[in-house]
Amino acid sequence: MTNLTEPAVSTRNKSWIGESIRRREDERLLTGKALFAADIDLPHQLHLRIVRSTYAHARVLAVDVADAKRHPGVRLVLTGDDLAHLGTIPLQDLGYHEEYPQIETFTQPPLATDRVLYVGQPVAAVLAEDPYVAEDAAELVTVDYEVLPAVLDPVEALATDVELYPGVGNEGVRIEKGYGDVDAAFQKAAHIVSHEYRTGRHSGVPMETRNCVVQPDPGRDVLFVSGIVHVHDSQKVLARILGMPDTSVRMRHSEIGGNFGVKGDIFPEYVVAAWAARHLGRPVKWVEDRSEHMVATSHAREQVHRLEAALDADGRILGLRDEIFHNHGAYFRQAEPLVSDITSVIVVGPYRIPSYSVTLHAVLTNKTPVAAYRGPGRYESTFARERLLDLASQTVGISAIEIRRRNLLTASDLPWNPGIEMVHEPYHFVSGDPAEHLDKALTHIDWDSWLTETEQLRGEGKSVGIGVGVLMDKAGLGLYETGAVEVSAAGRVRVLTGASSVGQGIETVLSQIAAEHLQIDPERIDVVHSDTDLVPDGVGSWSSRSTVLAGGAVREAALAVVAKAKRLASTMLDVPEERLRLVEGAIADSESEASISLYEIAGRRDPYTARLEDDEPGLAAHAVYRNNEMNYPYGVTIVQIEVDPATGGHTFRRFFTTTEAGRMINPMTTRGQIIGAAVQGIGGALYEEFAYEEDGTPIATSFMDYLLPAAQEMPDVEIFVTEDAPSPDNPLRAKGLGEVGIIAVGAAVAAALDDAIGDGLHTDRIPVTPQRIFERCRSRNKTAD
Amino acid sequence: MTNLTEPAVSTRNKSWIGESIRRREDERLLTGKALFAADIDLPHQLHLRIVRSTYAHARVLAVDVADAKRHPGVRLVLTGDDLAHLGTIPLQDLGYHEEYPQIETFTQPPLATDRVLYVGQPVAAVLAEDPYVAEDAAELVTVDYEVLPAVLDPVEALATDVELYPGVGNEGVRIEKGYGDVDAAFQKAAHIVSHEYRTGRHSGVPMETRNCVVQPDPGRDVLFVSGIVHVHDSQKVLARILGMPDTSVRMRHSEIGGNFGVKGDIFPEYVVAAWAARHLGRPVKWVEDRSEHMVATSHAREQVHRLEAALDADGRILGLRDEIFHNHGAYFRQAEPLVSDITSVIVVGPYRIPSYSVTLHAVLTNKTPVAAYRGPGRYESTFARERLLDLASQTVGISAIEIRRRNLLTASDLPWNPGIEMVHEPYHFVSGDPAEHLDKALTHIDWDSWLTETEQLRGEGKSVGIGVGVLMDKAGLGLYETGAVEVSAAGRVRVLTGASSVGQGIETVLSQIAAEHLQIDPERIDVVHSDTDLVPDGVGSWSSRSTVLAGGAVREAALAVVAKAKRLASTMLDVPEERLRLVEGAIADSESEASISLYEIAGRRDPYTARLEDDEPGLAAHAVYRNNEMNYPYGVTIVQIEVDPATGGHTFRRFFTTTEAGRMINPMTTRGQIIGAAVQGIGGALYEEFAYEEDGTPIATSFMDYLLPAAQEMPDVEIFVTEDAPSPDNPLRAKGLGEVGIIAVGAAVAAALDDAIGDGLHTDRIPVTPQRIFERCRSRNKTAD
Repeated sequence: MTNLTEPAVSTRNKSWIGESIRRREDERLLTGKALFAADIDLPHQLHLRIVRSTYAHARVLAVDVADAKRHPGVRLVLTGDDLAHLGTIPLQDLGYHEEYPQIETFTQPPLATDRVLYVGQPVAAVLAEDPYVAEDAAELVTVDYEVLPAVLDPVEALATDVELYPGVGNEGVRIEKGYGDVDAAFQKAAHIVSHEYRTGRHSGVPMETRNCVVQPDPGRDVLFVSGIVHVHDSQKVLARILGMPDTSVRMRHSEIGGNFGVKGDIFPEYVVAAWAARHLGRPVKWVEDRSEHMVATSHAREQVHRLEAALDADGRILGLRDEIFHNHGAYFRQAEPLVSDITSVIVVGPYRIPSYSVTLHAVLTNKTPVAAYRGPGRYESTFARERLLDLASQTVGISAIEIRRRNLLTASDLPWNPGIEMVHEPYHFVSGDPAEHLDKALTHIDWDSWLTETEQLRGEGKSVGIGVGVLMDKAGLGLYETGAVEVSAAGRVRVLTGASSVGQGIETVLSQIAAEHLQIDPERIDVVHSDTDLVPDGVGSWSSRSTVLAGGAVREAALAVVAKAKRLASTMLDVPEERLRLVEGAIADSESEASISLYEIAGRRDPYTARLEDDEPGLAAHAVYRNNEMNYPYGVTIVQIEVDPATGGHTFRRFFTTTEAGRMINPMTTRGQIIGAAVQGIGGALYEEFAYEEDGTPIATSFMDYLLPAAQEMPDVEIFVTEDAPSPDNPLRAKGLGEVGIIAVGAAVAAALDDAIGDGLHTDRIPVTPQRIFERCRSRNKTAD
Repeated sequence: MTNLTEPAVSTRNKSWIGESIRRREDERLLTGKALFAADIDLPHQLHLRIVRSTYAHARVLAVDVADAKRHPGVRLVLTGDDLAHLGTIPLQDLGYHEEYPQIETFTQPPLATDRVLYVGQPVAAVLAEDPYVAEDAAELVTVDYEVLPAVLDPVEALATDVELYPGVGNEGVRIEKGYGDVDAAFQKAAHIVSHEYRTGRHSGVPMETRNCVVQPDPGRDVLFVSGIVHVHDSQKVLARILGMPDTSVRMRHSEIGGNFGVKGDIFPEYVVAAWAARHLGRPVKWVEDRSEHMVATSHAREQVHRLEAALDADGRILGLRDEIFHNHGAYFRQAEPLVSDITSVIVVGPYRIPSYSVTLHAVLTNKTPVAAYRGPGRYESTFARERLLDLASQTVGISAIEIRRRNLLTASDLPWNPGIEMVHEPYHFVSGDPAEHLDKALTHIDWDSWLTETEQLRGEGKSVGIGVGVLMDKAGLGLYETGAVEVSAAGRVRVLTGASSVGQGIETVLSQIAAEHLQIDPERIDVVHSDTDLVPDGVGSWSSRSTVLAGGAVREAALAVVAKAKRLASTMLDVPEERLRLVEGAIADSESEASISLYEIAGRRDPYTARLEDDEPGLAAHAVYRNNEMNYPYGVTIVQIEVDPATGGHTFRRFFTTTEAGRMINPMTTRGQIIGAAVQGIGGALYEEFAYEEDGTPIATSFMDYLLPAAQEMPDVEIFVTEDAPSPDNPLRAKGLGEVGIIAVGAAVAAALDDAIGDGLHTDRIPVTPQRIFERCRSRNKTAD
């Protein structure tokens, strides 16, 4: 490839990067033209309904499907025995197989065979002509269980004799990491603070539940699959378990109505649908209902941190120790042990922590398996660390702001290479100034006015408090992403990307990046993704990686297109290449009026003409952008909460959140990401929890029991984004911003509640329910009486 | 690319090329698993029915669609005015636009606007919820016509005042070519023979009529199209007329139930279906019925040749002159003026003709437009030339065999470069020995025994005769074809090709070529084609080009795969690359037992691993095979016919046909091609004709009036294939064999009829109907009485 480091766009040209253009996705979504998998109906399609375990832990003695098979309209009923030959759903090898060879032990069969490990686990499957018939028939399947004791708590799971995987125990993976001399730090500490923190089990709840449509072509043994998020991983895993070539599992685009990480797995239901479609030679459609979604889509977050810090007399951290119990539920899914790995390192945050050691237990329990949910590992670790800092500030006798200011990394600390790996890459913090960012944020909101106002409100008898949480994200995760830019003579540009659109606005952002480098209006640029025929190799959208990785690939492809256009235009215009410039989507001679648009150049490169010259037809380029560097956006979330002692309710008086973005591609979509994340963070802090009965029966299986923050619970989110530290690790200078907004919310909300209630108690587990607030307020008032 | 001229296959390896393996296509076709476009049904699809002109030439005064629109279930009725903004269907520029800029004048609008030029021309379109409703409603559309005189004969069309294209006249293109001094040849000739020959209007009649299904994705302005044969050309032309990027018209594979050239155009109906689907945002399905097919699918063949030859006293040709009138029907379609161009040159055949001149008039008339039908130009020109040679043999007083033997090219004449271009490439005959081939063929069948037997049968009172036709084809037509070979860890290989499967067995042949170079059983090789997402650039299957061009691309891709496999295996096995050999689908060390299969190598190149090494994932390669050289298979067709004077019927006592194949990839599919072509050649000689009333009303609009040779009319075809002259122009050494079998049939059958009837008359037009045979026999008998 030619050297593409030279910027193709002169500074006089229009800049599309940084513009708040309207979302390209919205026209089709808002006008009802978007096609979701549930909208797809195919002739002769069958509907899949899953029979799920009603016990958290049991032996399966017998599955009786006779009545279901006899039900009119039923075409096939499957049990675990029918699919036992498929084995379990393999994990993609993200480099962990060698380190933890045992992880495949904990993978899930498509349908349970001899035992079930959580309520909601697929046990049998009914395929019928009609979805209602399928549901009715599924109720006719009877399963004989021998119930076993349920293991639910991740700490207790390591002590009990009850083994989910007999002979293996309940610890799936143990991660031990660290740097520096932690013991020495604790020996010389002036202050030691320690506490146990718990984040509750909750998860992303996208508007669209999981679904898929699998259309077989029996004559060619090909499956066409729609509805699955991560098309490339899913293609590979489905192909492997079915024994087909990857290219015979052809993933076709449909819209994804929200992901947040929790729809990104290759779920048992997908495997059942694909196997049945291939077996029967008929399309199979599966759409789960909301109750299924609550027990069978991946959960997240349930972690216990036993965190302790060694500090000097001034409150400077000398060392940190953590023991983490990560409740993985019953099986390992695709994102594991990735989330555990991230959890174990992100504890250190954007702080100058000279020594650190951590032990993480990835524990198997009789709950729904977990996956990556927005800010995986970050939300939990940040809650623990920031809460411990609040505790430490009291011990040292300085303010919550001051202890952070003294410990946050500053520009003079950089590059900060403590010597620890996260997802197999060294964690090194190389750009920015978190301490300065905190001060800028406080200046921006006039921090003293918050304090004054809070005091004033308390004087009026109101229970008002402020909480602060500092955050760091790890965004971007290798190794590469693919992209292509194709200019059409019809006056449009097609961008192909390995990323996928899950609501985050990636089509908009990539169209801006292409627009910038082609100097063509983004309205003329169509972004195509999630189609393995058109994009046979790609990685996908997760870990806040798409803007940097997919954007990097699109940028390189666009630069290559411009380079090719100049080469061709030089001949077409008879002007030396060095005199040519890109101006408004055309290649123009800098010394005359001669000019030719990219569209026209493309039109002149029909295949016959191009091949005659041994050139590729059209005006297009493909790029593979490789970047192993993660980037580390950081920020602070500060909230002011008023609680109502009479009801236990609360009001966000102010909700302020910041991030150092490197460089925003689209400030409007950045805002959207931050606001959406903030609301989900509030959900985890105050509302959402997948609670269980003691026998492992889930309590929250509908929106009556699983509370979500709705529009009326949404605060007015004040956002402050700095672009002080453009990322040195990628040419877009961008940092991944899909998750920053959620990370510190749990910590900040907990601190604000403690401050508002003023009972001296330290919130160490979330969510904090209205009941708990009510009780604490009542106790406080009794004490005060 | 690395140097791929080195053969990758050692002679000890198994050879798949040359094996009569069973057709890979047949399992799905014979078990009903194959998917034709007519099998595709999509939710909310509408059915298209075309209202067709009932006059051959008329002004359209008014189209009344009010009743049709009111018909229940009708969603849209379109007239020419609705689609006038689209203009006419553009021709692909195959290099003729510059030479004959007027050709776009003669292109067809999707629906007629102010006038109609043939019976069957689309005038209006009805889209309804049901195909029967659409058909009923179409009958409610009334059109006011002002009828104009019809021009039907291509010779008369140049003399009449009636102009189909007012102000332009009826000659679309005039081609004038030649070489040598023809006038001098005729001046010094000992014998001059001249005659006018006519081939009747007939065409390919595939089992599957034309159809298409167009599925729009309104949210992304994309059309998915199935059912169209030449996906790459169609994609470009449909996109251009609709103003869309090529890549937004995504062609998806469905089976093609026969093509023979006549389904290869971008027909008006396709444009109407695509426009309506996009306009309505609903899928549109169109399946024509057989009667529509007879008037609206492209016709072929109707030509008049005024041919004259100058010979010396021994019957050696000194020069040849031809004036050709090619009846193009009412419009130019994609293959024009290609067929005219080929017609004008192929007249010379595999003969040593020192001088030649030709004038071809591509004439527009009020008949259905014509296209390329198997052996286009060759069947017609060969009929004229071979018949004239028969006439000349009588004039000179030598046998039909002898005059050919004296004039056929021999090895000593080669290379034969007479200095004339065909389809913009020089015609040069460089390999083989047509004269020797004729003698070999005669020896093979014991020619004298044919003569003896014929005499003996005549002695028994039977009307038996023999006819001979020598043929040369022009196979392969540039410029390139694309191909890819992808090895999967699942133990299969996917071959992607720009060719398409139209019944000819290309999947089988390409799987053999890949098998040969990978040393993998063809059963494990899946050939994928006719999908513009997977094969964005390709040319297609026509002009007997696929084996050479697509085969060449697959061969290069397979060689590149083996080269990559050796490079990778060298590291994997720790063996120097030069010690590695391809053995049974594995890369093996020639000095040890070390070996690794291609499948396993592919499995080790998952994207993460490969990208880390800056390599492409998997084990795959893509190739573009370029070859401007056409190849010239040749042969002879000899038939022995018995006619029944009482009925005018006939029996093929013997049907013998030969070809010099260069190198057969699959002798069984070669036989299939030759037999199928022979039967179609018989159809054109004896049965098939699109006859017209004087006012331009077609007579043959069903199989009651358009006679096809059926199984009972099929002779037992004796085939003799030589591989004496492997093509020097391509590494497979192959020649295109899809059309050779049809080329000389008309000539040989006509000669045999004359010989059998023995009335001294010279058959100069085909088809020769039973009525004509009956009349000639009756006249002969009367004369004899």
